Order: sequence, then C-alpha cells, then structure tokens
Amino acid sequence: MSKSTSTTVPAKFSGFAVDKPENWNKAKLVQYDPKPFKPYDITIKVICCGVCGSDCHTVLGSWGPLNRDDLVVGHEIVGEVIEIGSEVTNHKLGDIVAVGAQSDSCGECELCENNNEQYCRDGIAATYNFPNKRCGGYVTQGGYASHLRVNSYFAASVPKNLDVHYAAPLLCGGLTVYSPIVRHGGYDLKDKRIGIVGIGGLGSMAIQIANALGAKEVVAFSRTSDKKEDALKLGASRIIATKEDPDWSKSNAATFDIILNCASFGKGVNFDSFFGALKLGGKYVNVSAPPSDELISLSPRNLIFGGFSIVGSVIGSMKEANELLKLYADNNLAPWIEKVPISEEGVHTVMNRINVSDVKYRFVLTDYDKAFNN
Amino acid sequence: MSKSTSTTVPAKFSGFAVDKPENWNKAKLVQYDPKPFKPYDITIKVICCGVCGSDCHTVLGSWGPLNRDDLVVGHEIVGEVIEIGSEVTNHKLGDIVAVGAQSDSCGECELCENNNEQYCRDGIAATYNFPNKRCGGYVTQGGYASHLRVNSYFAASVPKNLDVHYAAPLLCGGLTVYSPIVRHGGYDLKDKRIGIVGIGGLGSMAIQIANALGAKEVVAFSRTSDKKEDALKLGASRIIATKEDPDWSKSNAATFDIILNCASFGKGVNFDSFFGALKLGGKYVNVSAPPSDELISLSPRNLIFGGFSIVGSVIGSMKEANELLKLYADNNLAPWIEKVPISEEGVHTVMNRINVSDVKYRFVLTDYDKAFNN
Ligand SMILES: NC(=O)c1ccc[n+]([C@@H]2O[C@H](COP(=O)([O-])OP(=O)(O)OC[C@H]3O[C@@H](n4cnc5c(N)ncnc54)[C@H](OP(=O)(O)O)[C@@H]3O)[C@@H](O)[C@H]2O)c1
Ligand SMILES: NC(=O)c1ccc[n+]([C@@H]2O[C@H](COP(=O)([O-])OP(=O)(O)OC[C@H]3O[C@@H](n4cnc5c(N)ncnc54)[C@H](OP(=O)(O)O)[C@@H]3O)[C@@H](O)[C@H]2O)c1
Ligand SMILES: [Zn+2]
Ligand SMILES: [Zn+2]
Ligand SMILES: [Zn+2]
Ligand SMILES: [Zn+2]
Repeated sequence: MSKSTSTTVPAKFSGFAVDKPENWNKAKLVQYDPKPFKPYDITIKVICCGVCGSDCHTVLGSWGPLNRDDLVVGHEIVGEVIEIGSEVTNHKLGDIVAVGAQSDSCGECELCENNNEQYCRDGIAATYNFPNKRCGGYVTQGGYASHLRVNSYFAASVPKNLDVHYAAPLLCGGLTVYSPIVRHGGYDLKDKRIGIVGIGGLGSMAIQIANALGAKEVVAFSRTSDKKEDALKLGASRIIATKEDPDWSKSNAATFDIILNCASFGKGVNFDSFFGALKLGGKYVNVSAPPSDELISLSPRNLIFGGFSIVGSVIGSMKEANELLKLYADNNLAPWIEKVPISEEGVHTVMNRINVSDVKYRFVLTDYDKAFNN
Repeated sequence: MSKSTSTTVPAKFSGFAVDKPENWNKAKLVQYDPKPFKPYDITIKVICCGVCGSDCHTVLGSWGPLNRDDLVVGHEIVGEVIEIGSEVTNHKLGDIVAVGAQSDSCGECELCENNNEQYCRDGIAATYNFPNKRCGGYVTQGGYASHLRVNSYFAASVPKNLDVHYAAPLLCGGLTVYSPIVRHGGYDLKDKRIGIVGIGGLGSMAIQIANALGAKEVVAFSRTSDKKEDALKLGASRIIATKEDPDWSKSNAATFDIILNCASFGKGVNFDSFFGALKLGGKYVNVSAPPSDELISLSPRNLIFGGFSIVGSVIGSMKEANELLKLYADNNLAPWIEKVPISEEGVHTVMNRINVSDVKYRFVLTDYDKAFNN
C-alpha cells in the first residue's frame, strides 16, 4: 500500500524547532502538543511549506523574543484536511487547503466582518510564535511540521488546477503583495505605473501580480542589476539598480503611482529618493518588516511638498487569498520556487540562505511524507 | 480728501524686512524694487496681512538661508488691485483680492491644469524668499509691505460679505487645512471623526472648517488643556491634552478617520501614539513644517499592522481658496484674529509672540494706510 498514508491525528505533532535566537539556523526535530481542538478548527496534514523572510526574522529574534523554546516557524502551508470541527462549513475531509501567516481572529468585530480580519485588534493569532488568547494562550506553531491545527476560516481552497508547491508561497508572500496592490491600485492597473522594491520572494510575486492585473508598467528596483534578466522574465519592463545609479531618483521623478517596498532590511536606504519618484497622490506602500530597531526617517517638508502617501499593509484577507490562488490558476502563473526536501539539514540550509536573500525566489520545503511518515 | 488714497504704483515698494536670521525679530522698514511686471501680473495695494508660523520659521532660517538681505515675509495678503497686465482676465482695477503663500507657477503642466498648481514642479514661486525663474530669478517679497505684484491667477476674489481681516488668514492658514480636509475627507464629513493637532492659527481654522463641513466629531489635540474652552467654542467636541494624559492613545485607539497635524514643531512628539489612534484606512495628514532638522521617525512594523496612511499636503489650489472664502462668507464664520497695526514695533511683537505660539489664534497686521501712506 505504498500510496496510502495515515489520516489519523497523532497525539503529538512533529516539527523542526528552534530553541533560542543563537540557534536560529540549527532547528531540531521535536514533538509537541497540538493546539486544543475547537469546534471551528481543522487539522491539516502538511504536504509542503514555503519559506518566508519573516520565518528568519522571527527565529533570529529580530522582532522580539521567541515565545517557546521549541518554536516551529513556517506560514505558507499546504496540506490535506484530516480532522474537522463540528462548526466547520467551508472545508471537508480530504480537501487540499492552504494556510498563511494568520491562524485566528475574533470573527465578530467590524473588521472581521468586512474582510479585514488581518487587522482584527482582539483575538487575532499569527500562525506561529503567537499566544492565542482564544485557546488559553497556546503559543502557535507553524508549518515546518507534520501537522497544523487552525481556525478553518484561515484555510483557503487550493484550486485543482494549481500545483500545491505553487500554492504555498502565495499564502503569505503572494497575498502580502496582492492585497495592497488591489486595495491601492484596484483590480485593473492599466493606468498605473508600479515599482517593486527588493526582488526576493515577495518582490518576484509582486511583479507577476502587477503584470497579471494589467499594469501600464512594472518596474523592478533592486540594489544591483544582477537580477535584471530575471526581473524582465517575471514581467518587469526594466530594472532600476539603486546602488549603481545614484541619479535614479532624479531621472524617475514624479513617475510612479505605487512603489511597493518588499525589502527585508531598511538600514541605509534613502527613503527620500523613493518618495521623490512618486507622482502627486502616489503611494509608497510598505510591507517590509525589518528588525524592530530599523526605523524609517521622514522629512516633514518632503512629505508636504511631495503630496504622496506612505502606507503600510499586513498580509491580506482570506477573500483576497482565494482570489489570488484563482489568479495564478486561471493565468497559468507559477511563482519561481526552489524545492528543498524538509529535514534538519534542509531547514538549516534554507535559513542560512534566506538570511542573505540567496534564493530565486522562494524556497518550498517538500517531501513531508518522507520526513514525517505522513 | 481724507478718504482718498493713491492708486499709482510707486517706483519702489516699502516693507518691513529682515536682513539675517539673527535679526529675525528686528525687521526694519526698507524700500526695494518691485518684481518686473509681466502681462499676467497684477499689482496690489496691500490692506492687511495675516502672520503665519511659516513667516517666523523663514526669518529664523529654520528651513534654509534667507535669499536676500532685505527679506519681507507675509503671505496672507488682502489688497486692492491697482495695476493690471494685458493678459489678466480674472480681476479688474479696484477689486479686493487675497493672495496666499504661492505667487506663481508654470500654468501649463498637467498639475497646473488640474487644480494642483501648488505641486507644480517647474516655474513655481512661493510668495516670499523664492527666486522666481519666470522673472529672471527675482527673489519674491511678501505682504508686510505696501504693495505686492503677483501672477493674477494666484489672487482670489474676496466676497463682498467677508471682512478683509477675516479673509487674510484664510489664504494660507485656512487653505492649508481646508485642502487636505476636503481631499482626504470629502466635502461632507458626516461619517468622519477628525482630530486636529496643535491649536494655533492653522489648528483653530481647521476646527472651524471640519465643523462647517459637518464632521461627525472634531477633536482638538493640544499639549495641555489650557485651550479647552476655546477649542469647544471653535467647534471641537472635546480636547485631548497629550502631555497631561499619557494614556490618551490607548483610550482613543482606532478612533479617527483623519488626524491633521498643524503643530509648528515636532521634536519629542510621540508620533506612534497618533498613528495608534487612527482607524484602519485612517490618515495622518501632516501640514506641519518644522525646522529642517526635525524628522518624523516611523516604525515599519507599526505602519504595516496599523494599516493607516501618512500623507503630506502643502497649501491648496486657487479653486479651493475661492471655495474656502465662500464657506466662511456663507456661514458667517470668522477666524479668531488679533489685529496689530503694522510698524517696526508691531512686526517685532508679532514675531516674538508667534515664535512661542502666543496668539489667539492669528495675528493680522492692519492700518497699512498709516504705515505706508497707501
Ligand atoms: N507585511 C507583511 O504582512 C509581510 C508578510 C511577509 C513578509 N514580510 C516581510 O517582507 C520582507 C521580505 O520578505 P521576503 O520573504 O520576500 O524576503 P527575501 O526573499 O529575502 O527578499 C528580500 C529582498 O530584500 C532585498 N534586501 C535584502 N537585504 C537587503 C538590505 N540589507 N538592504 C536592502 N534590501 C535588502 C533583496 O532584494 P534586492 O536584492 O533586489 O535588493 C531581497 O531579495 C521581510 O522583511 C518580511 O518579514 C512582511
Ligand atoms: N503645509 C503647508 O502648506 C503649511 C502652510 C502654512 C503653515 N504651515 C506650517 O504649519 C505649522 C503651524 O503654523 P501656525 O501658523 O498655525 O503656527 P502657530 O499659530 O504658532 O500654531 C502652532 C501650534 O503648534 C503647537 N506647538 C507649538 N510649539 C510646539 C512644540 N514645541 N511641540 C509641539 N507642538 C507645538 C501649539 O499648539 P498647542 O499649544 O495646542 O499644542 C501651537 O499653537 C508651522 O510649522 C507652519 O510653518 C504649513
Ligand atoms: Zn510571511
Ligand atoms: Zn475581529
Ligand atoms: Zn503660511
Ligand atoms: Zn505647472
């Protein structure tokens, strides 16, 4: 029965965990108690998981402490539903679903009721390293693991015509750029010139998405021109190498409707040059989440004379996640991924490499069946 | 002939000028050459002029050098048209007009053609201390002066039923807050809760304007509660004293649609508490123009989790200036002003007092006929 795999929920889940920031690149295989099961929950047997820049920031402690000493990260998770709570209506056993960076919210506030659950102020839980108030403070565990248990609302349906390995990175990286693009640019970008800063996981998908939504022009911003060929293949019309061309801002003054910052770090970045490249009414949209001590510094006078906006955005809504999966499926798009079988060694490698953005352009951890006897 | 006054344009204009930042509060009466007359220009005999916080920042050199050693500031100017260029169509001799902080622009670009002339990137001139490219680099002179010569486009028509002394402060202070309020909140604010930060000249008019446009609630933010009674009279429902109530942000979390920063200085201000008081999609609108070395510092993570925008705005369009004059006239509104006869002593007094925001709430320099034999 080589193809048959277990669909029973184990008493303990298994995952690759970091105990403290010093060991950020030395995850170990551990076992841990699942989150208490709620009637709105599903349990998923994981098939694969993307590797987000945020996973690395988190285990490095760049945003704050690790909230458990067996922390499992990973929030671009695709798997099969193997357990279902009594209140669940959006999924059934055997469904292939995808979970991103959010695993819970109150479900009742004005934000939750209007497809803004990612901004819910009470009852929200991130997929990992987050004490979930609605579950007695259980600190959530992510998808570098055999199984995942989440509020079923936060599981999107993976379309049949989309490869599971492509679906994974869309749930955090893809969604994080899709949501601000459609919220600030609309669903038809034909009048919009869009700049994408930082051609990594998020940036590469942002180029594809802006292009798929018909942007007038998509311009890649990268520190050097090394990624020029890739950026053009992804759908950019040109690349601006910010460290190579000190005058780039002047030659692109008042040009962009939206500049989306997807870079992992901000130290030493000249934000004013980006602001100067925005049109009147243009938006600098930040999704970058650098270490907590890296602040953006703004000149009030540039702000007033420029007449632009600075906006932030976190992940996206489940409505948008489902839209995005469909966009990729319908347009035969594929995020550029590099598959790495999950194992201690595999996780060490991807951490070391994502920390220096050495990936083209998203790692997806695979072969969960081998690692976990899933 | 006591009432008759001269309508001939003198060869030299007279004004109260500062020679260098050290003498910022020691303006002296001087004479200077008018700007070369262009066919689109008008010459105005000044009747009165408001005193803007920007006048003080400028003579102090807080934003950069003084571009002439006989610099006359003042950009809330009301006067009578006494000379008119051959191309002028919007005004005629004898009209009472008002000029704000802008005195020229290219007139031809997309911005100028769409009521965004205040953001024109080429050919723009501020009303004072600005080398006007379209006039051979003539460094512009403001309204603490007998006369003013400007591009007629930048003169608004003062409605007959509006006191000239009320019209003056509307042209810079009023317009600067009116424009972002209507651009970001719309012309009907009934669904909007609006916070006004810094109850000075701009802030006091912002409260009146937001109220006149029907805001659901207007809340005044002041460092202390000293101005509570005034704020309520101006139209605020309550005052938040930011230095007295350290928890104000928590008790007002996610409350405001717009927070408009009208304060003169930013040093030591906790911007994150203001951001935390914004709703999802809310806007922090900055019109404050503190000294160049005072920067706003932003946490990217607060920005992304808050989902708010930070926006800047400079003065407003002439279309908006005319709307605003009409709003005050039609609603029988009056900015709260303190009249000071213009003279060396008068200008010294207003500079010393505006520098420490000791005014309720706008100085208007008056009695130009006496000072200049106008
Ligand atoms: N807002 C949200 O909800 C959300 C969600 C997911 C991720 N994030 C954040 O988004 C960021 C990007 O994540 P990712 O997974 O796309 O990371 P990534 O694949 O490592 O890409 C980051 C890109 O940033 C640029 N970069 C790297 N080091 C830099 C430095 N020192 N200075 C300036 N730029 C640098 C590089 O682009 P070039 O080589 O082209 O310059 C790199 O490809 C991270 O901060 C992550 O935490 C936020
Ligand atoms: N964007 C534009 O186009 C534009 C146009 C005109 C003016 N401006 C700028 O707008 C600002 C306000 O001008 P204004 O004429 O209204 O000045 P103002 O009458 O002096 O009022 C400024 C207010 O700022 C607050 N303030 C004063 N010192 C402060 C400090 N150290 N820290 C924090 N707050 C302080 C005070 O309010 P509280 O006592 O209530 O705290 C004061 O009433 C100036 O920076 C001016 O240059 C910009
Ligand atoms: Zn992520
Ligand atoms: Zn909620
Ligand atoms: Zn002003
Ligand atoms: Zn123009």
